[in-house]
Amino acid sequence: MKKKITIAIDAMGGENAPKKNIEGLNIFLNKNKNKDDFVIHLHGNEKTIRNELNKFNISTDLVKIFHTEDIVSDEETPLTAIKNSKNSSMWNAVKAQLDKEADISLSAGNTGVLLVISKMILKMIKEVNKPALAGLWPSHKGISVVLDLGANIECDEKNLIDFSEMGAALYKSIFPEKTPNVSLLNIGSEEMKGTDVLKKTYQKLKMLSDKNNFLFNGYIEGNKLMNGDTNVIVTDGFTGNVALKTAEGTAKFITDNLKKSLNQNIFTKFSVFFSYFALKKFKSKLDPRKYNGAIFLGLNGPVVKSHGSADSIGFYYSIDLCYKIIKGNLMDQIKNNLNHLDDKD
Amino acid sequence: MKKKITIAIDAMGGENAPKKNIEGLNIFLNKNKNKDDFVIHLHGNEKTIRNELNKFNISTDLVKIFHTEDIVSDEETPLTAIKNSKNSSMWNAVKAQLDKEADISLSAGNTGVLLVISKMILKMIKEVNKPALAGLWPSHKGISVVLDLGANIECDEKNLIDFSEMGAALYKSIFPEKTPNVSLLNIGSEEMKGTDVLKKTYQKLKMLSDKNNFLFNGYIEGNKLMNGDTNVIVTDGFTGNVALKTAEGTAKFITDNLKKSLNQNIFTKFSVFFSYFALKKFKSKLDPRKYNGAIFLGLNGPVVKSHGSADSIGFYYSIDLCYKIIKGNLMDQIKNNLNHLDDKD
Repeated sequence: MKKKITIAIDAMGGENAPKKNIEGLNIFLNKNKNKDDFVIHLHGNEKTIRNELNKFNISTDLVKIFHTEDIVSDEETPLTAIKNSKNSSMWNAVKAQLDKEADISLSAGNTGVLLVISKMILKMIKEVNKPALAGLWPSHKGISVVLDLGANIECDEKNLIDFSEMGAALYKSIFPEKTPNVSLLNIGSEEMKGTDVLKKTYQKLKMLSDKNNFLFNGYIEGNKLMNGDTNVIVTDGFTGNVALKTAEGTAKFITDNLKKSLNQNIFTKFSVFFSYFALKKFKSKLDPRKYNGAIFLGLNGPVVKSHGSADSIGFYYSIDLCYKIIKGNLMDQIKNNLNHLDDKD
Repeated sequence: MKKKITIAIDAMGGENAPKKNIEGLNIFLNKNKNKDDFVIHLHGNEKTIRNELNKFNISTDLVKIFHTEDIVSDEETPLTAIKNSKNSSMWNAVKAQLDKEADISLSAGNTGVLLVISKMILKMIKEVNKPALAGLWPSHKGISVVLDLGANIECDEKNLIDFSEMGAALYKSIFPEKTPNVSLLNIGSEEMKGTDVLKKTYQKLKMLSDKNNFLFNGYIEGNKLMNGDTNVIVTDGFTGNVALKTAEGTAKFITDNLKKSLNQNIFTKFSVFFSYFALKKFKSKLDPRKYNGAIFLGLNGPVVKSHGSADSIGFYYSIDLCYKIIKGNLMDQIKNNLNHLDDKD
């Protein structure tokens, strides 16, 4: 019998936990009714969790609860986290991977603490110096992977090459039928543009291109991020974080203005009625909940972070992401891509 | 008699030049019919320019033509520009400032060449080490200034402080009634976040805050850029360029999707009819032509770069920007703000 995919969920992390976490789980279970290849482990307060589970008549074959009283608070800082968060629902979810009880862990709790304890518990893959936080971006052709979104504000060429290999592995695990292509985020597309680190990374990725399990597409500029021509976009955590937040802010600015325009007066409000279905499709396509879930890469096991404010649908998408990347053998893909280390330095 | 504001325009730069340049000028002249405080100098082929001017019956009191046959091509590189672009319409427009014949110059031509020859002709302000390219961003409360958008990919704290002072001066020249506030673009708002350069800049701007002609607002994250709470946003040219292009790409992605949704089928197309006025206002508010014109700061005279593909309305906004910043005494504001140099190092 093939081993089942086991997802360890911090049921107590995020706003409205565990309610929204269990609601999200219920959506996941309904959508995967006929599958028998996974198990969900819920870490947190058994009584509260069971209360929520009872609302949905969820089968106990698929879900196992691991009780703990402790929760990582939003105010906890990464500095004191290791001392204070032991045996919390978040800690136990991550620890389950070390104990080979789970393949992946998911939390919507305190980001800084999650990154620190994940690194401490799971340790870095020995060939990788720095971990990266990878996110999913919408594009005209589907979904792209962008990393690093903020784990490391300064990166050298070794880090960026690691990120390229891990990002390509992540993409491949989600879309197994495709051979990913990778680009470096830069301020121009010509070979000589950008910082020294970028130029060195460019040359090394070009040299390595026939040994890699992905294609190297050169540089990409910010305005092309959403074209969909590149599957994996690699950058340092400072630039990636600014790009991600700028994109979020711009999207919000535009949709706020659109809403304001449509609510201007009785005539425009009336027009919304006629545009209802068009705008519904538009909203659905751009729904950020579909892209909820950042993946912490570079550790001996993947950890997924859901937005703390994600609702049940957003949390569902994070669970689904966990399922997909384990089904797509993320960790094997990463090891595969990291196979030519001597050439990197 | 007060000296008139003189704007030197490279009439031959950009797509569809000089047609769109003169059409843009015509819009500017019509909107400023009753003003007598400016003169426009047009640099380029006299015959072609006069052909375009004749279409609009433009008064020769307001416009003077400076003939030259030479034009900077789009293929010209910054490396050979100084040799090849002498006596071009772009060169002559910038040179007019050195000769005290103009207060500001404007071109929609080759950006790299414009930056190189502007620096060569006008030279740096002696207190400033590196120039910056500043742009206007829409926000919920009006317009913000963002710099550097790509002139310098690596910046130290002295550069970022210079940019803060010059950016505040630019904002003040456009909005004389306001005291600008300045923020540093970062990946978090806490004092200890970010790179070493950012932390040092933060401390120095905080220390200098009672001596400056602007307020220091601390750090700002990418998702807050368009809130309108900060008037001037300072960053290095790499991050600024990525943020600008990511915002452009996101805006395009969203509006493309909106258009697609509204053109989906006969029913949604019909709905556009009802939403027409609402969407018209929406489009007008977000019209990028209103923000056309990047200002090259740090030289002994301001140079404005219009998008090469801007149409006549976009070019009009660039001319209007030139007029405003000279009326607002940009160069005096900059000198004013650079007045505490000993404390900076």
